[in-house]
Amino acid sequence: MSSTSKELAKDKGQGGKPLSAGELQKMDAYWRACNYLCVGMLYLRANPLLREPLKAEHIKNRLLGHWGSDPGQTFVWVHLNRLIKKYDLDLIYLSGPGHGAPATLSNSYLEGVYSEVYPDKSEDVAGMLKFFKQFSFPGGIGSHCTPETPGSIHEGGELGYSLSHGFGAAFDNPDLIVTVVVGDGEAETGPLATSWHSNKFLNPVRDGAVLPILHLNGYKIANPTVLARITPEELEWMFKGFGWEPHVVEGDDPATMHQLMAGVMEDCVKEIRAIQKKARSAPKGTEPERPRWPMIVLRSPKGWTCPKEIDGHKLEGSWRAHQMPILDPVTNPKHLKLVEKWMKSYKPEELFDESGKLIAELREMAPVGKRRITANPHANGGLLRKPMELPDFRDYAVKVEKPGQIEVSPTDVLAHFLRDAMKMNMTSFRVFGPDETASNKLQAIYEASGKTWMAKLLPEDADGGDLARDGRVMEILSEHTLEGWFEGYVLTGRHGFFSSYESFVHIIDSMFNQHAKWLEKSKLELRWRAPISSINLLITSLVWRQDHNGFTHQDPGFLDVVTNKSPEITRIYLPPDANCLLSVGDHCLRSSNYVNVIVADKAPHMQYLNMDNAIKHCTKGIGIWDFASNDAGDEPDVVMACAGDIPTEEALAAVAILREHCSDVKIRFVNVVDLFRLMPDTEHPHGLSEREFDGLFTKNKPVIFNFHAYASLVHKLTYKRTNHKNFHVRGYKEKGNINTPLELAILNQIDRFDLAIDVIDRVPRLQLTAAHTKEWLKGQIIEAVNYAHENGIDSKEIREWRWPL
Amino acid sequence: MSSTSKELAKDKGQGGKPLSAGELQKMDAYWRACNYLCVGMLYLRANPLLREPLKAEHIKNRLLGHWGSDPGQTFVWVHLNRLIKKYDLDLIYLSGPGHGAPATLSNSYLEGVYSEVYPDKSEDVAGMLKFFKQFSFPGGIGSHCTPETPGSIHEGGELGYSLSHGFGAAFDNPDLIVTVVVGDGEAETGPLATSWHSNKFLNPVRDGAVLPILHLNGYKIANPTVLARITPEELEWMFKGFGWEPHVVEGDDPATMHQLMAGVMEDCVKEIRAIQKKARSAPKGTEPERPRWPMIVLRSPKGWTCPKEIDGHKLEGSWRAHQMPILDPVTNPKHLKLVEKWMKSYKPEELFDESGKLIAELREMAPVGKRRITANPHANGGLLRKPMELPDFRDYAVKVEKPGQIEVSPTDVLAHFLRDAMKMNMTSFRVFGPDETASNKLQAIYEASGKTWMAKLLPEDADGGDLARDGRVMEILSEHTLEGWFEGYVLTGRHGFFSSYESFVHIIDSMFNQHAKWLEKSKLELRWRAPISSINLLITSLVWRQDHNGFTHQDPGFLDVVTNKSPEITRIYLPPDANCLLSVGDHCLRSSNYVNVIVADKAPHMQYLNMDNAIKHCTKGIGIWDFASNDAGDEPDVVMACAGDIPTEEALAAVAILREHCSDVKIRFVNVVDLFRLMPDTEHPHGLSEREFDGLFTKNKPVIFNFHAYASLVHKLTYKRTNHKNFHVRGYKEKGNINTPLELAILNQIDRFDLAIDVIDRVPRLQLTAAHTKEWLKGQIIEAVNYAHENGIDSKEIREWRWPL
Repeated sequence: MSSTSKELAKDKGQGGKPLSAGELQKMDAYWRACNYLCVGMLYLRANPLLREPLKAEHIKNRLLGHWGSDPGQTFVWVHLNRLIKKYDLDLIYLSGPGHGAPATLSNSYLEGVYSEVYPDKSEDVAGMLKFFKQFSFPGGIGSHCTPETPGSIHEGGELGYSLSHGFGAAFDNPDLIVTVVVGDGEAETGPLATSWHSNKFLNPVRDGAVLPILHLNGYKIANPTVLARITPEELEWMFKGFGWEPHVVEGDDPATMHQLMAGVMEDCVKEIRAIQKKARSAPKGTEPERPRWPMIVLRSPKGWTCPKEIDGHKLEGSWRAHQMPILDPVTNPKHLKLVEKWMKSYKPEELFDESGKLIAELREMAPVGKRRITANPHANGGLLRKPMELPDFRDYAVKVEKPGQIEVSPTDVLAHFLRDAMKMNMTSFRVFGPDETASNKLQAIYEASGKTWMAKLLPEDADGGDLARDGRVMEILSEHTLEGWFEGYVLTGRHGFFSSYESFVHIIDSMFNQHAKWLEKSKLELRWRAPISSINLLITSLVWRQDHNGFTHQDPGFLDVVTNKSPEITRIYLPPDANCLLSVGDHCLRSSNYVNVIVADKAPHMQYLNMDNAIKHCTKGIGIWDFASNDAGDEPDVVMACAGDIPTEEALAAVAILREHCSDVKIRFVNVVDLFRLMPDTEHPHGLSEREFDGLFTKNKPVIFNFHAYASLVHKLTYKRTNHKNFHVRGYKEKGNINTPLELAILNQIDRFDLAIDVIDRVPRLQLTAAHTKEWLKGQIIEAVNYAHENGIDSKEIREWRWPL
Repeated sequence: MSSTSKELAKDKGQGGKPLSAGELQKMDAYWRACNYLCVGMLYLRANPLLREPLKAEHIKNRLLGHWGSDPGQTFVWVHLNRLIKKYDLDLIYLSGPGHGAPATLSNSYLEGVYSEVYPDKSEDVAGMLKFFKQFSFPGGIGSHCTPETPGSIHEGGELGYSLSHGFGAAFDNPDLIVTVVVGDGEAETGPLATSWHSNKFLNPVRDGAVLPILHLNGYKIANPTVLARITPEELEWMFKGFGWEPHVVEGDDPATMHQLMAGVMEDCVKEIRAIQKKARSAPKGTEPERPRWPMIVLRSPKGWTCPKEIDGHKLEGSWRAHQMPILDPVTNPKHLKLVEKWMKSYKPEELFDESGKLIAELREMAPVGKRRITANPHANGGLLRKPMELPDFRDYAVKVEKPGQIEVSPTDVLAHFLRDAMKMNMTSFRVFGPDETASNKLQAIYEASGKTWMAKLLPEDADGGDLARDGRVMEILSEHTLEGWFEGYVLTGRHGFFSSYESFVHIIDSMFNQHAKWLEKSKLELRWRAPISSINLLITSLVWRQDHNGFTHQDPGFLDVVTNKSPEITRIYLPPDANCLLSVGDHCLRSSNYVNVIVADKAPHMQYLNMDNAIKHCTKGIGIWDFASNDAGDEPDVVMACAGDIPTEEALAAVAILREHCSDVKIRFVNVVDLFRLMPDTEHPHGLSEREFDGLFTKNKPVIFNFHAYASLVHKLTYKRTNHKNFHVRGYKEKGNINTPLELAILNQIDRFDLAIDVIDRVPRLQLTAAHTKEWLKGQIIEAVNYAHENGIDSKEIREWRWPL
């Protein structure tokens, strides 16, 4: 940073010395205690307080852990503690740098929280030893801020999401300060890079504050970081360009750094409070303007306070300090000595009493009760969560007197329910979507709340822009940022709903994976973590209506990713019509600790079930549609099964054709809403038993299954079933360009004509009797494609249909 | 942007008027011709030159297309043409904004290239009509710059990768200028946001230049863009912070804007040439410094030159101009008139001659031959591609005298081959990896070339930093940026190799999807696109060796994503040892038009095959390992199959155990290198025929299949096989934390002991005779876990083994 800004930072620090000598000494001692614990967990399996000379057998057999960012993070923490106590701050801490858990763990232990949550890790010598040994140890805990870590809502195993998680936590938490330490490695990722812009979506009146601290320690695993090697001016410009007011703390001398940091951090807290006070005390009706929020650049050496050199190579302040700075203390006595000297440099004998507990004088440096960062309930959001208030979803039902007669947009229907749900939860529910809420036909939600927008407003925005300073619909063209906000929001005890174009939900595959893993551990292994709201992902603008956007927008493969994660966490619903979507939507919003994936299109589609039947159908999750079946009491000739709104429509149209042309064929029509019903009940809690499955799909009749996504997914879920060998699944097979809806269906053979042919081909007696029909069906296919290529639209005559009454 | 910078821009433009009146008039006319064609393709299916009054029946039935960014992009293009001609520039153009293809298409048509590639779209009235009609029309072409678009290497269907693609194209192309128009919507994505930092990796001596043009037209689908609504100062700071020198062109009056743009763009070209000249003429041995490259901010109205208003609502300069500005000309006669008036405002009668061809005076505005942007061979990179020179991979073989006796790191062996491959292709091969090349044990490559680094160098970098201004190993902590660079590099005719931690390759799932779709269209439907090098993805730091990084780093699901894409494009290899990895690596580097996914770990693993056998095995892709089988000539009792280095090792260890304890059981050992061998030959070109498959796996014997990734993938590939019902597949099942390697295998039951139990459980006669053995195996499992939890490492006695000789 420029010398000007450095001086500025110093100046702000009340003459550069905000801390008294005593305060400084105690803060430094607390910091040394943190750092001692960090090194201890990296290295020791015995002799935790070094009360005897360090020997090889005290060292862990496998040295796995990361020192690099720990001392910088503990440094931040000590200074946060001071301000929490001084100003009674409600504050949580997100650790962005990878493998930085020792910083949070050591503080949690010193705050006494760790021993409260895990009583065997008690505040004494024996407990400290267990605390050390378990770290990055088989059967123990990881080196990220995993769910096991008190105070964590951000694991940091995959990099890039710390800041968007932090903003999610701050939304609608007006008194909360969310400190986010961003690693300079993490800062190179795309998701992190764009999430600096989140400040255009934070309202100082109703939201809390995010205080980002870029930890510029210079190195990743093996390379310098980009941000550490641009000019100080560029770095300052960049953050000012992103709309932040950067404050710099730079150096390596602890005493000087403590004074600098104390001053800068206090300034930041004061700036935050001043911004909030100004916005919140403005006359009623005044729209808040976007402030320039403060942020901190902490430029400290990588691995700060470890030995300066090892074997003539630079250690502190180099990539060599990223992981274990000293790799071979077990076999290299000189290096064993170096570890001992390093650990003793923190003077553990001054920090811990005879029993192994932090001395009383230092204990009082930490806040107490829920103000302790690792005990803050916002970081165990389920504790604060209240169930959503919801209107009766049945009030939004589409009137369906007879199946298959009218068309409506399912998402448009859902939008009205969501609109009123929004009205009933105006401080605890947000809707997320990448510039596509309206495109996904959810714009009715804007009647309850506009789109959050703290950037500049123009007069013309009043004409249909739906922008609002206090809007609750979050739109930015970054699925990463939205998903990060959403996760942060639910992890702190609130509720949300995300809609995405189907194809581009793959952008957040990896975020889904990580959140599912977090949930699985929290739910199945950690009783102390209270359940949080589910992530509700509405996948819409589906592959089958990407006939105009073309090939790039056709990818229903997210479901394959989802099915790889724990059955305890994942739910997939494919409601066939609007009433089913309402029922599913209500169910998902009430649920906790899941990732619910709902697949439903935005275009108008045929409706089949009245609300009562929709509820029954969705509760069962799979079922025979009697109106479309003619096998009453008998074994059918064939089962026509389907999952997904468009495949259902085509399957029904196929049955209608067969009724007319092959009226003697007995068809059972099965619709699947809850995809995991297909799995064995031994593998998924929603799975059907063998008996139930066979009851629906028979033991030996042909099954034509028209599926929304890739056909192989149905095989993946059903390969163990009795009748699987007779399953003939149609789905998307990577065929598409610019096509009409019917043409796209035909290209992938999920259309009514191909399905009818499938039936004819698989019911032996039809192969003789229905030869004519088959030829006619083939003719229809050719005619449909020709018409589309000629006219640019589907032939109404060929495509439109009603279920026969 | 600040008024200062605006004035600066004006000043630079040679008094603000670099264009003579005649030149201005002709450029504007050419621009009008482009825009006319853009609107024509959006609307018309007849009457292409409006030689009769526009009627409803001339309008397409389905209006699908996007006008928003077209006129801004054609404006850029006209100015590029001027400079290409003036300075004989070798220049390509990447269109970042979504759905902006009309700009490229119209120019390609005017340049005559379109008619050369697609002769039926001739330069006359009939050809123009076909050209209009096919656009975003069933059976026609899409509204992105799809592979069908001459001059395109960047489709832009999914947003975020234009700039990284552009840099990939510029690397090692010293004379090339890559113009990248970045949409301000796209600019909000994470991948785009961080790719501005690519300038720290571009060497002005050996690489070409990238000229980014941020097209700040203010709106996305339905929202303002963030960058358009921050202050001009913030925007300038941001780009200066990213290391660019921004030039602003802002306004809406065409004449003024032409003068401004001509001046600014010429300045940029001169700056680029000056930077290059300075760097390239420096005395030998001078290391180049990172320059501040120029970039342009073009702030022009969204939908520029369309009607200002519609029905009292703002149209030009608003989100309403994003897609079709006028939606209902067919049914609304007033709006039909408006379309006609709009189109006629471009004065087509002045632009096209009687035959429908662009008038000669305007034709000469475009460059000729390969200088025409859409004819530039860099955008059809296969034309320029030369096969890689490769050393003989057999020279790097690990000496394997007997199978299963020694351990080496497979990736370390491969690294030496890659190192020498690098030396032989020092201007056309790059290696990509997110700060993990060394972590993935590929650091031998640095002996041929260091890591590209144009940011600041420090003295300590000399000590093992491996950084180099002219390095050819690309490392930034952004998988998105790396994959984008890599794609841009191969799309322009060069070669590359990407290594990633397995779990985090999911970050680029969607980029993989998009590239696979591009390749599929190019390869299967577009003869004129010459084959390009394959994307080679080495997936390493595998799930089974994430025992120390924990649960977040355990996800082998990328293979599931890959198997959803076209069999013509996708290849997956799981070489079981280092010699097989060499053989596979060589094969992949020689291939074209694939995405090759290679799964191989970095940790030391057992070696089985000498080089001759490895070549034979990899050529077959699947095979019986005789040394591990004892079913010679007979049907076995059981088939032990495996895919992946770690599962292979465990499977062999299981067989070794069974040899000792159940020596009478006849086991056939099958190893799979080429995963698609498992698919039927009717579905994948690498698939085995039914006969071949049954020959390997029998028709009715139990098959224990130990798989690297999720077990369901094997079922997905084999469910049609005769013996599928007897396939019992082991794979990763989301069980893991901090564990030893053996404990992690045990948790997921891919370990030797569980596999041996699987055999015992499935061979009826063993259930009696091997009861003791089974108990012993269970004991071994408990002992292994206990040892690990006690000591933090695996018991050597339990884990280490050698194949019995």
